[in-house]
Amino acid sequence: MGEYMHDQPVTPRTQDEKDAVVNRLKRIEGQVRGIQKMVEDDRYCVDILVQVSAINAALKKVGFSVAERHTKHCVSDAVQSGNGDEAIDELMEVMKQFAK
Amino acid sequence: MGEYMHDQPVTPRTQDEKDAVVNRLKRIEGQVRGIQKMVEDDRYCVDILVQVSAINAALKKVGFSVAERHTKHCVSDAVQSGNGDEAIDELMEVMKQFAK
Amino acid sequence: MGEYMHDQPVTPRTQDEKDAVVNRLKRIEGQVRGIQKMVEDDRYCVDILVQVSAINAALKKVGFSVAERHTKHCVSDAVQSGNGDEAIDELMEVMKQFAK
Amino acid sequence: MGEYMHDQPVTPRTQDEKDAVVNRLKRIEGQVRGIQKMVEDDRYCVDILVQVSAINAALKKVGFSVAERHTKHCVSDAVQSGNGDEAIDELMEVMKQFAK
Repeated sequence: MGEYMHDQPVTPRTQDEKDAVVNRLKRIEGQVRGIQKMVEDDRYCVDILVQVSAINAALKKVGFSVAERHTKHCVSDAVQSGNGDEAIDELMEVMKQFAK
Repeated sequence: MGEYMHDQPVTPRTQDEKDAVVNRLKRIEGQVRGIQKMVEDDRYCVDILVQVSAINAALKKVGFSVAERHTKHCVSDAVQSGNGDEAIDELMEVMKQFAK
Repeated sequence: MGEYMHDQPVTPRTQDEKDAVVNRLKRIEGQVRGIQKMVEDDRYCVDILVQVSAINAALKKVGFSVAERHTKHCVSDAVQSGNGDEAIDELMEVMKQFAK
Repeated sequence: MGEYMHDQPVTPRTQDEKDAVVNRLKRIEGQVRGIQKMVEDDRYCVDILVQVSAINAALKKVGFSVAERHTKHCVSDAVQSGNGDEAIDELMEVMKQFAK
């Protein structure tokens, strides 16, 4: 096991759940490629910065959807099996990184 | 001209400048693909969140390098030609989005 | 009841818990007054901005300690009594505001 | 001189400018005291977190108004007197802290 409580979610993600996250990440991947082109085309810096902010916002949304699913499955499962505090400490640590 | 003061930087980016930013964006693109795979492999949520935070941090670094170059060229040029306030207002607006 | 699930924590805070948070907030209050004085003394802008960042960081720490306590008590209690999803939705909403 | 380029702004703040910032900081000081009371009254954690987020947002606004004034005066003055890059490096460093 890695440094965290599990290697996988306590409840496996359904294919629908996986697709929902992967599709958003694919859009973000496309946006990152879009900025590469803007830089190659020597587009105005502010236009580029607006796109960088948009990607940051989209990534945060993906992160929060993963965090929510995690809290509803892995953390809740730990709470019900008496390991709540450890799982919540783990959640808070990663949310602190995420909130920067 | 779009909604911003310019369509392109007042001083064109050198190819080296472009390559430096594009290479970082390519690494970020690879990291985003990496997370897609983690989701497909049903990796633990906290591992995924740590990667999302890492990409956010990398993107912010790219953003700040673009903002610095912008301020040293476009904003400074505007200051020297008497349009400083307009350029600084524009800079602050985009930094506010960026600081979220 | 307000717009949230409770008016008070499911487990009342002990006086020690209250004192710990209030003392940190009192230090922050002092820091805010300190910046007022820096402005009155026309101190250099960067010095002031460094202090503003320090207060933001201190406030985030207070916020995370409140969020952690909340998750270990109110959210965990809701999970055990079958209202976990509602409490987690509430937690995520406020963490999104907090992560800005 | 401290670790920064100046001890004071290149153009002294007017009393109106000072009052505008100090009044906002006084409101923030009052908000911080308000949260202390919420904790003493054992108010619900989410209510408290919403207030912490509101103060963070108010502080960021104060910070950006100080950063804007700084850029329009101290940084612009440095640009015009040939020290632009040093002043912009200093600005970017403090904005990075501030964007966390």
